[in-house]
Amino acid sequence: MADFHLHPQLEADSVAVTDLALSSVRLINDSNYPWLLLVPRLPDLVDLIDLTPGERVVLMGEIGLACDALKAHVACDKLNVASLGNQVPQLHVHVIARRKKDAAWPNPVWGAVPPVAYRPEEAMRLSGLFAGFLSEAPRQA
Amino acid sequence: MADFHLHPQLEADSVAVTDLALSSVRLINDSNYPWLLLVPRLPDLVDLIDLTPGERVVLMGEIGLACDALKAHVACDKLNVASLGNQVPQLHVHVIARRKKDAAWPNPVWGAVPPVAYRPEEAMRLSGLFAGFLSEAPRQA
Repeated sequence: MADFHLHPQLEADSVAVTDLALSSVRLINDSNYPWLLLVPRLPDLVDLIDLTPGERVVLMGEIGLACDALKAHVACDKLNVASLGNQVPQLHVHVIARRKKDAAWPNPVWGAVPPVAYRPEEAMRLSGLFAGFLSEAPRQA
Repeated sequence: MADFHLHPQLEADSVAVTDLALSSVRLINDSNYPWLLLVPRLPDLVDLIDLTPGERVVLMGEIGLACDALKAHVACDKLNVASLGNQVPQLHVHVIARRKKDAAWPNPVWGAVPPVAYRPEEAMRLSGLFAGFLSEAPRQA
């Protein structure tokens, strides 16, 4: 899609997983939490309601897939789903697997503790695992 | 809908606005931020993916309406939309109008500063304003 450029901060904080119909899926490079990021590949999006109603439905389907991917591959007590964007204005949706023993529980993850980068081979392994799941998932939307 | 009971913590933290097809809409009683809460009125929901794909689409429509209601009635620089639920497990979605001069900006609102309750007449006025908008909005889903 023309004119979409991933925000450099999102790019720096994460590694590519795969592209779904609307969103690029990325893995946040923080081993404190299994944490996927969905970034709709359309230009000039800030808020969720900058998407058309039809695009929002597609995004909801992709959020569901990201939730399913986390549940399938990591132990988790709760899923956190959020579109905040106060610091990085480009629309992005966090989908985070939370554990009752994780570094921030029960608080939100943002600003809780400094990120701990994955070893490169572990980031690659996880990215491949989620990419595999997402490529095989039935398209919901 | 049978067997749904609003979690007492959510009830204590907010005032009723209106009921949409799926969710009860409530106003969080914190004058730091114009902040709506959507609570799907179905029993035993914890995560977003506990909803069926069809229910998720309805919820996305209701999230859009809550965003529109905030944008229509309060000055705001950014919308925050989040389903966390680490402390209150009943599925609920926060829709928050953020201002660059608000008490927590640019951080998330949770845990940032203690809530400041509205004067009762102001809570009632805002609740009525949002209820009016939501009752007139075209049903999207």
